[in-house]
Amino acid sequence: MSLIVQKYGGTSVGNPERIRNVANRVARWHKEGHHVVVVVSAMSGVTDSLIKLAKEVTTEPAEREMDMLLATGEQTTIALTAMALHGLGIPAVSLTGAQAGIVTDGVHTKAKIANITPKKVHDHLNAGNVVIVAGFQGQDDQGAITTLGRGGSDLTAIALAAAVKADVCQIYTDVDGVYTADPRLVPNATKIQEISYDEMLEMASLGAKVMQARSVEFAKKFKVVFEVRSSFNDNPGTIVKQETKNMENVVVRGVSLEKNQAKITIAGVPDQPGIAAQIFTALAEASLNIDMIVQNVSAQGSTDITFTLNKDDLGKARKLIEPIVAKIGAKGFTALEGISKLSVVGIGMRSHGGVAAKLFRALSEAKVNILMISTSEIKISVTIDEALGQKATQTVHDAFGLNIAKPA
Amino acid sequence: MSLIVQKYGGTSVGNPERIRNVANRVARWHKEGHHVVVVVSAMSGVTDSLIKLAKEVTTEPAEREMDMLLATGEQTTIALTAMALHGLGIPAVSLTGAQAGIVTDGVHTKAKIANITPKKVHDHLNAGNVVIVAGFQGQDDQGAITTLGRGGSDLTAIALAAAVKADVCQIYTDVDGVYTADPRLVPNATKIQEISYDEMLEMASLGAKVMQARSVEFAKKFKVVFEVRSSFNDNPGTIVKQETKNMENVVVRGVSLEKNQAKITIAGVPDQPGIAAQIFTALAEASLNIDMIVQNVSAQGSTDITFTLNKDDLGKARKLIEPIVAKIGAKGFTALEGISKLSVVGIGMRSHGGVAAKLFRALSEAKVNILMISTSEIKISVTIDEALGQKATQTVHDAFGLNIAKPA
Repeated sequence: MSLIVQKYGGTSVGNPERIRNVANRVARWHKEGHHVVVVVSAMSGVTDSLIKLAKEVTTEPAEREMDMLLATGEQTTIALTAMALHGLGIPAVSLTGAQAGIVTDGVHTKAKIANITPKKVHDHLNAGNVVIVAGFQGQDDQGAITTLGRGGSDLTAIALAAAVKADVCQIYTDVDGVYTADPRLVPNATKIQEISYDEMLEMASLGAKVMQARSVEFAKKFKVVFEVRSSFNDNPGTIVKQETKNMENVVVRGVSLEKNQAKITIAGVPDQPGIAAQIFTALAEASLNIDMIVQNVSAQGSTDITFTLNKDDLGKARKLIEPIVAKIGAKGFTALEGISKLSVVGIGMRSHGGVAAKLFRALSEAKVNILMISTSEIKISVTIDEALGQKATQTVHDAFGLNIAKPA
Repeated sequence: MSLIVQKYGGTSVGNPERIRNVANRVARWHKEGHHVVVVVSAMSGVTDSLIKLAKEVTTEPAEREMDMLLATGEQTTIALTAMALHGLGIPAVSLTGAQAGIVTDGVHTKAKIANITPKKVHDHLNAGNVVIVAGFQGQDDQGAITTLGRGGSDLTAIALAAAVKADVCQIYTDVDGVYTADPRLVPNATKIQEISYDEMLEMASLGAKVMQARSVEFAKKFKVVFEVRSSFNDNPGTIVKQETKNMENVVVRGVSLEKNQAKITIAGVPDQPGIAAQIFTALAEASLNIDMIVQNVSAQGSTDITFTLNKDDLGKARKLIEPIVAKIGAKGFTALEGISKLSVVGIGMRSHGGVAAKLFRALSEAKVNILMISTSEIKISVTIDEALGQKATQTVHDAFGLNIAKPA
């Protein structure tokens, strides 16, 4: 008998029929004698409808009240999921995030989990129930309802799995695992059986939209092994876990492409301490997500700094950068849209040389020009022309032999 | 500066525009320097939609989970109402029933309020906020969400008014007070300025759908003076309060008609102790709401018992009665639909004779046959043919001079 935490996303619980399907799935595990904790998201579309409703009431809804409002989405799903299990004769009890003992800080709409006291979860499990917990939400130490922001339900599942010391944590989604590349771009992409937290983190923060990085970070911190799998079939998914020695035999685990990128280059930045800090502090304070930052060696007391960001943020960034350029005495700045970021990821890079060379050679043979290069210990990223993104991804994928399924 | 509790029902908060209207109303009181606690219901239609959703998931949803589900209705409204106030520049904070300190027993879908610890309400009021509280809901001593059943939001408002020692409690609804009769039936009905709890109780438990009896009972018990008024205009409403001496000058406060009634007569019931108890225990255990019960003197060791109930419950009642008739050795039973109950109500009856005679005479002159008669200290009820209901109500109303507005 195991203690299993399962998480089902908004698409998996998108309507009453799908909720009954989820209940059927959960019932199977329950009948096999497992203790099951189920974390669910709001039904797909519900959160958007609630946001729309709020906007109809006032243009800038307060974050505390948005949390109060949005928390009803998951609360609806937990009640319906418990009812669906009852319909199958399975004892089940729903709990809001607050009731499940999830305490967060007080930062509304993007709260961080502070601690979990899963007493009620254990009590209801011990009484023979499936326990259904609302994802995405908790309460602060004053008892106000908070939400965890994007990807919050995954985080709830992983944090709960850690708190209840679950044997298994399953993240059910609409894809059946993590692939060596996005199968829509690379038809011969293969499913990865096992992946390390660090690789998953790099994949997650790139184009692979399976999970938000913060959930993976949390899993890594608390050593929660989890499996990403499909709620629409019974295929085994991808296991995400601490790295093992033999994982390093695979040099590159996957290749990802992040579209809709833009870059800004500030030219002639005076080469003095504190200048870069001024620039990026301003951007951070405006909550702009800066991705790659490249600065080359300076010449004649000044240098160029280039950074990438989502193209949707470009307008806001331009406005912020303009006065800064003047203030720091830089020459000027240029902005470019229409670029993508291609990355190869793999912990095997640490012990295998030549990955960069192989990547650059593959791109060169495909006649893809490299605009920027940035590397980390287990990742090499390049920015390229968006129009060449798919071709480049396919070429690089095959160059690293990812089209052939490998053992972990 | 007063402390005011206001309650707005589902129609008053039925869409974003109406929620903004409510906010405008609340803002006026706030700007006059009052402390305002606002209790709101679910937006009209929302509760029904949620019930429909539940039925799509399973045929007999568990009550605990229905409470979890339905509680989202008011939670949505409180968030939106707070947002609407923010939009007007008024500080406001929403609280669920549980957060407002409303503790109930554990009887899901029809919980009773056990106690209220309104610390958070006071804290937020003292910080200058309008406090918006979800009606209809609370939590039991285990922290499970409960709902209070029909009319629950009125109950929340009155109980909160008692708990926070409010100076004023206003129940906003879609009618602008309590009338001497239903104005749809009796066009010359007049608004009652003041009414005693007992009269309101009788009116409420009859056709006057303004409030559920339990809320009035609660108000009476805790001596909460409240006003029923319209959220769509600024007319003064009806004040409900402890009776005063001069209230007795009015013999009949109002006349009400309750439609959709049915009656069951059990004939030849053995005249032995405990027989009536057997019958009505069985009906009560099936949660059938029995209204009038009439038993006349027995003849030859047996008697007839007649009772009325809502006609929707008639089928269920028939099934229950059939075996009981056999068991207690009665002769048989007959059921009749298509009847209404007409009542005249007034604490003045206690000190004025001849009310019954006047009522019977008025009905007789209108050629309305009386099927059953039942009296209480401040009420006389008769059942009549449903087809004659409106005519009878108008006749009785005018016979008691209710068409002329009177001082309380």
